[in-house]
Formats: sequence, C-alpha cells, structure tokens
Amino acid sequence: MDKKLSRLKLLLAEVADLQAAHNLLNWDLETYMPPAGAQARGHQLATLDSLCHQKFTSDEVGQLITDLKQELADADADSDEARLLKVIAKDYDRATKMPVEYVARLAQLTVRAHESWARARAESNFALFRPDLEEIIEMRKEYISFFPPKEHPYDTLLDEYEPGMKTTEVQRIFAALRSKQIALLQAITHAEQIDDSFLHLNYPQQQQWDFGIQVASKFGYDWRRGRQDKSVHPFSDSFSINDVRITTRIMEDYLPSALFSTMHEAGHGLYELGINQAYERTPLKGGASMGIHESQSRLWENLVGRSKPFWEYFYPRLQETFPTQLGNVDITSFYRGINKVEPSFIRVEADEATYNLHIMLRLELEIAMIEGSIEIKDLPELWNTKVEEYLGITPPDDAQGVLQDIHWSFAGLGYFSTYTLGNLISAQLWEKIGDAIPDLEEQIRQGEFAVLLDWLRSNIHIHGRKYEPQELLQRATGSGITSAPYLRYLESKYSEIYKL
Amino acid sequence: MDKKLSRLKLLLAEVADLQAAHNLLNWDLETYMPPAGAQARGHQLATLDSLCHQKFTSDEVGQLITDLKQELADADADSDEARLLKVIAKDYDRATKMPVEYVARLAQLTVRAHESWARARAESNFALFRPDLEEIIEMRKEYISFFPPKEHPYDTLLDEYEPGMKTTEVQRIFAALRSKQIALLQAITHAEQIDDSFLHLNYPQQQQWDFGIQVASKFGYDWRRGRQDKSVHPFSDSFSINDVRITTRIMEDYLPSALFSTMHEAGHGLYELGINQAYERTPLKGGASMGIHESQSRLWENLVGRSKPFWEYFYPRLQETFPTQLGNVDITSFYRGINKVEPSFIRVEADEATYNLHIMLRLELEIAMIEGSIEIKDLPELWNTKVEEYLGITPPDDAQGVLQDIHWSFAGLGYFSTYTLGNLISAQLWEKIGDAIPDLEEQIRQGEFAVLLDWLRSNIHIHGRKYEPQELLQRATGSGITSAPYLRYLESKYSEIYKL
Repeated sequence: MDKKLSRLKLLLAEVADLQAAHNLLNWDLETYMPPAGAQARGHQLATLDSLCHQKFTSDEVGQLITDLKQELADADADSDEARLLKVIAKDYDRATKMPVEYVARLAQLTVRAHESWARARAESNFALFRPDLEEIIEMRKEYISFFPPKEHPYDTLLDEYEPGMKTTEVQRIFAALRSKQIALLQAITHAEQIDDSFLHLNYPQQQQWDFGIQVASKFGYDWRRGRQDKSVHPFSDSFSINDVRITTRIMEDYLPSALFSTMHEAGHGLYELGINQAYERTPLKGGASMGIHESQSRLWENLVGRSKPFWEYFYPRLQETFPTQLGNVDITSFYRGINKVEPSFIRVEADEATYNLHIMLRLELEIAMIEGSIEIKDLPELWNTKVEEYLGITPPDDAQGVLQDIHWSFAGLGYFSTYTLGNLISAQLWEKIGDAIPDLEEQIRQGEFAVLLDWLRSNIHIHGRKYEPQELLQRATGSGITSAPYLRYLESKYSEIYKL
Repeated sequence: MDKKLSRLKLLLAEVADLQAAHNLLNWDLETYMPPAGAQARGHQLATLDSLCHQKFTSDEVGQLITDLKQELADADADSDEARLLKVIAKDYDRATKMPVEYVARLAQLTVRAHESWARARAESNFALFRPDLEEIIEMRKEYISFFPPKEHPYDTLLDEYEPGMKTTEVQRIFAALRSKQIALLQAITHAEQIDDSFLHLNYPQQQQWDFGIQVASKFGYDWRRGRQDKSVHPFSDSFSINDVRITTRIMEDYLPSALFSTMHEAGHGLYELGINQAYERTPLKGGASMGIHESQSRLWENLVGRSKPFWEYFYPRLQETFPTQLGNVDITSFYRGINKVEPSFIRVEADEATYNLHIMLRLELEIAMIEGSIEIKDLPELWNTKVEEYLGITPPDDAQGVLQDIHWSFAGLGYFSTYTLGNLISAQLWEKIGDAIPDLEEQIRQGEFAVLLDWLRSNIHIHGRKYEPQELLQRATGSGITSAPYLRYLESKYSEIYKL
C-alpha cells in the first residue's frame, strides 16, 4: 500500500506543480504582463490546463485509486490517507466523466461566449449574448447527463463549487432568509439616511496602500509567505502553502474600495496560508469549498472590518493618515458611513443588507434555466421583475441588469449561491468564536487578532480539503449551514445603525 | 509532409509553452516571489524541466524528425522549414544522447555543488568546493563521451553555448587578442589616471530608474511588449516574442550600475523582441548563440552607451536629472569617468579594456581541466598566477579569485568564452553598421536609434535561431569571428581617453 500511495502522491505532486505554474501564469496576466503578451499567454494557459487534465486522468492514476480503495478499506476512515484518497477519487470521477471532446467544445464555446457577453454588456444588448447563453445552458444540461441522476439536476452543478450541497437544501436556507432580508431592507429605506460623502473625497494611492498593508499585517498576514499587488479586479491566489498572494484595486475618490478589498482578499489568503503544511503538493491543499472560502473573506472584511471594535482601534490611525479628509468626521459617523445601506443594481457593489438578495434572484433564475421552466429570451424581463420585488428599484438597462456578471459566460452556473452561503457561514462561525473567546471584542479593540486567527486556523484552515464543507462546519460549530446567525447579526447591527 | 510538419510543430509548441511557464516561474523567483516560496518553486521548476525534456525527447518527435528529414531532402535548404528541422534535429540529438539517469545525477550534483561553492566563497576556502568541482569535471567528461569524438574534447562543451565553435578556433582568436590587450592595459596603467569620484555620490533610486527607462525607450524598447523590474542580478527573459522583460539593480552610491545594466539588458531584450513573429512557439524563437546574444547587449551598453555621441545627447539630460551631483562635471570628465580602466579582481565589475583578460584565463583553465593537464587542487594557485600575468594584480583570497563565479557550480564549463566572443562580434557588427549608415554618429548625437535598430533587426534579430552564429555573422558582415575590429575599437577609444 505504502508504495502505491507514494506513487499516487508523486503523480499528483506533478499535477500540483503544473497547477501552480498555471496559476502563476494567470496571476502574472492580471498583474504585470505587458498587454501584447496576451495571445501567447492564452496558448500557455491552455497547454498547462490540458496537461494537468491529461496527467490527472491517466489510467495509472485510475488504477492506483481502485487498488488503494481496496487496500485502505479497513483503515481509519478519518485518517489523512483515507480522506486524501476519497477527495482524489471524487475529483478523478468528475474529471474522467467529461469526454475530452466535450471539454474542448465547451472551451471553444466559452471563449466565444466571453466575447459576445462583453460586447452585449458594452452595448447593453442582451440579444448579442442570448444565442451563446442558450448553448451554454444546453451544455450544462449535457454535463449533468454525464453523472448519475440526483434528487435535482441542479445538484450536480452545485456540487462542483459546494461539495455535497443540494438544491432543496439551498432553497430551504434561502427561503428562510428572503422575506426577512426584504423586510429589513424596507425598514432601513424608511429610516433616516446616512451621509457618507466624506468617503468620496480624494484619498491618495500610497497612503491607502500603506494603510491596507498595516491592517493585513495586524490580521497576521505573513509577508514572508505572501505579497500584495494591484490588479483591475482584486483576487487571491496561491502557488504553495508558503506563497499566497492577494491583489487590490485603489480608487482615489472612494476610500472603502481598496481597504475592504484588501481585508476581503487577506481573508482568503489567511485561509490558504493556514492549511496543514503536510498537504503541500497534494489535492488536500486548497479550501473545502467556495462557500467556506467566502466565509473567511467575509469574516475578515465584514464581521471584523466593518465592526465598531475594529474601528475603535484603527480609526484614530486612519484619521492620522488622512487628517484633512477625516479630521472632522467622528468615529460614529465613519462607522455608519462604511455601513450605509442602499439598494443598487450591481451585485459587486452591494452592501451587507442587500448582497444576498442579488444572489437569490440569480439562484432562482439558474435553477429555472436548468429545469427548462423559463425561456432564455425572457431572462431580462424576469431579472428586472425580481430586482424590483427584492430591492425596490428598476435596472435602467440590461448592462446594469442581466448582463452585469461574467459567470454565465464561462458556464459557471452553480457558483453564485456560494457567495451567500459564505455570508451565512461567516456569522455561524462568528457566534461560535464569540463563545470560545469571551473577550474577543476587547481583543479587537486592542488591535489583537492572534487568538481569533488561531481559532480559525485550528478549526477551519488547517484541514484544507480534508472534510467536505458541511462536515467541516458541523465539526467547527456543531451545526449545518443555517441562516439564523446571519439574520441575528444583520438585525442587531442595522437596528443600532439605523435606529430601527 | 505538411501533415507531419504540422504535427511536429504542434508538439513543439506545447514544449515552448512549458518552457515559457518555466521561465516565468524563474522570472518570478528573481523578482517578486516571497522568500518562503522557494522550496515549492524548486519542485515546480524541476517538474516543468523534466516535462519539457520528456515531451521533447518522445519517440513520436524522433520519428517525425526522421520522416521529415527524408521528405525535406530535396527542399530548399535555406527555407524556414528546412532550417527549423535542422535545429530541431540537433537539439533532439543532444537531448536524447544524455541518459535520463545522467541528467538526474547531474541535477543532484549541481544542487550540492551550488551549496558547497556558496559556502566556500563565503569562507574563502577552496577546499570546501574542491571535491564537488572534481566530480563536476568528471561528469562533464562523461557528457563529452556521449557524443562522437571531435577534434578536441572541449569542442562538445563549446558547442552547447556557441553552436559550431571549435576549441582551436577560439584559442586562435584569443591568442591574437591576448598580448595586445595586455600591452594596451600596461600603457593605460602608466598613463595619468582618471578621477571618477563624482560617480560615487548619492543618486536617488527613482531618478536613476526613470533615466534608464528613458534611455531604453529611446533605443526603441516597446513597453507594450515588455517591462523592467528589479532583481539582485540583472537579467532578461522572454515568455513570447511579444513579452520580453528585463531587470536592473540600482545602487544609490554608484551611478553607472543601474544605467549600464539597463542598456545591457535592453540589448538582450531588443534582440528577442526583433525575432520573426512566425517563429513564435517554435525552436527558432531565441538567440543564435550566447555569443551573438552578448554581442547585442554589449553593442547597446558599450559601443552605443559608452560612446561620446551618445552622451552628447544624453548628458545634458542626465545633468538636469542630477544637478547637484553632476552640475559641475563637464561632459569630457563624465565620458572619461564612465570609461575609466582599472584592473580588478572581479570579472563582473571589469571595464572594456580588462574584461576579456578575465575570460581568457578562465578558458585556459577550463580547457586544461577537461584535458586533464592540471589538477583541481592546483587551481587557486594557477588562477592567481594568471591574474598576475594578465592584470598585474594579486587576488588577496580565493573568494576574490577562483571562487568568484557561479558557472562551474552549475557545470557550465564552455560558457565563459561567449562573453568575449560577444565583445568581438559587437565590434565587427559596429564597423559594418558604420559602413551601412554613414551618418550613424550624427543620428546617435540626435538621440535617434531607429535606423540602427532597423539594421540589427533585419541582419540579426529577425533570424532567431535559423542560422548558426558563424553563418549568421558571415551573412551580416562577410566575415567569421575575428578580433581585429574589437582591438581597433579599444585602441582608438583609449588612445584618445588616456592620451596614449
């Protein structure tokens, strides 16, 4: 067994190296690559992608999995080895069930769809994207057909991003959330509105950058094992457990953009930095799911970064950094300003009280597309109706409506709900952490995050992909995913801010 | 034939993509990688390396080469296809003649040798490096034994870096150079010495950086297709014909360092940027040899960058940039300062008049080591004797003597002479360009480099690896490598500067 396991690990370590090279090619593309390098970079990414796939789906890997499954049948089901094999077997099953021809066809379609989507959005003309989207939906259905039937066809798509999650489960969770979030939003929009004009003054780049670095350092970001760069869209990526990088985007006329994106990406980065070093170059290196990953970014960005104790420590420092802009703004006004709620058309700009509503409408439309219960041509209309229902506003055009997100153009149906699941999980963890660390607020007020990070490391980060998300959460909090903590968090926070 | 050629090109395009990924991993290692990422990066580089080798040396590639050789036998021997096949066949022959076991053994040895060399240099104790160097010499001899015997065993090593170059040829060229360079140096050391203390004042980083960028831009460096970053040792690298990057190192207390390294690396970069776009993702993308590559970097750094016409244009601009440091230094003093000759122990700091002497002694020792006519234990002594003979100074210790260069620790015997060949070629090209562009000096005096770059592009750059270096040079200048032009250049330049 030892020999076969070593051989399998060796083969997968090579795949991990190729994956790391692929990620670096992509990181460079987003950060430093000169513009004319794009065409060659496309070839390089495609070659690495296809090599990763070939190497991972080889017959030898398949045979080793089969053999080891038998040999490990009596082993401790919770051992790293047994769990590693389980994760590999599932990945292998997914990767080999897709015919090579299908993968190539999808790649071609999504390249074309990305172009038609970008053009459609630029011209705010859904008709330009519609034929490709229709094909994408058909190909996603074809994808579902490669796997054994599940309770609901959409389950197969969810499972790609949130292993083990079921359509009925996410519908149940979202149903418990929807009416309460809408009610909260309505209460807020009827309350006295917040003035956040001071956030829109001129904030020079370098000081914003330095302040973000200072905050991430306080969180415990280890710059010997990571770095921050600039990119058009902030993201985080990892080329090793000891090389985890984040990016940010600085807007000189809007202070919150860089600051909260640095905290958000640092949350993702801290997760990857905390994974068990023994999982380096194995498929256990990585986050348990998109939802768990998002719970970490949201926890640091929102539960920590938009909290009062956090600013009791950092606000005097921020005022020192920007004396002319913030010298006359007291901490309460600042705290209310960065927590201002306002229904808007664009998901990525949404605040904590409206974000989930954006997600819900996407989930409902995706499920309906996969079920075939709606026609693609009706999508813009259906989109706008839901925006009116949930947010009380009407998109002026499709660019700010159904065409705003890139996800469908890369066939990423199944992805959106993980954003909301991440929000919910962050609040579940937060309640649990509050029990475990009674003086957490006081620690944050002192700019101390080590005990918090420690808790996240030993309960979440260290495990990498060893446990599926629901099991991981059960182990950490004693509960599956539930919306109650997040609702409690929102209601308590906004009741105070908006005096509801 | 078309089908087989297309298939071969496809296979080699994948190798080129892997090679580009490998190069980017290395570029990142030298520029932005956080220090703790080093271990994983080592694995990634090794995996990519070994995959490149596997893919390139596959039986299918071998069979396609054999088939195409027959089918292209009657084709125009100068066509891109015929030349591509010739280059591939030679690369393939070299790559497949080395047993996999040998490659792995050499990789292990050089990792160990790099460590022992670094330690030996730090402690200035040759004995620490000696056992590994002895093994390296044995393994280089073993390498030579994989190939058919040549006129001289060292020919096989030379051919790796300077295709087609022979030991007797390089000895003949160097012999014509040695006594004259020594005589020139002696004349210079007896002349009145130059004061260059103004180059050692404080020159702030950012202004140095900006000035270097300005110069490279004037040379014609296309920043849409490249960039400059900082690294400990300046280098250039290319990930595509449209993504060619250079690095520099800035010393605040020594102005020439960053400036001339930017010009040097820009010379390498302009070469890669000028390669025929049709050669992208083929083995014809790249320089003809290390010597030809070095001729391009030296041409821009020295023939252009240390010339009087160049500074007639740029010196007023440099004075404006550094008014307190250079305001009172006239152009003649500046020109003499940057061309100051001084025998020194360290090759990489050597000036134009002494550089080749450093190379010659290394070449002589390398040939003797391969011939077995000297013992490794005697190397420090032999080194110092030659330094005394050629440069008239005595190394105070082995760190500044035989241990100074990294090359032997990576088994790079055969490499050194290409530095001098590059110097010689640069002067040969320069005389030819002078004939072709009669008002070249006047153009440079106006800060105009487009006609010069154009000449280099159409005579050297565009061809990539299509021609071997001697053939390329023959086509461009009507002559093989010869030392006369370089000697004429040195004698005329330094006679004026030192009033000899």
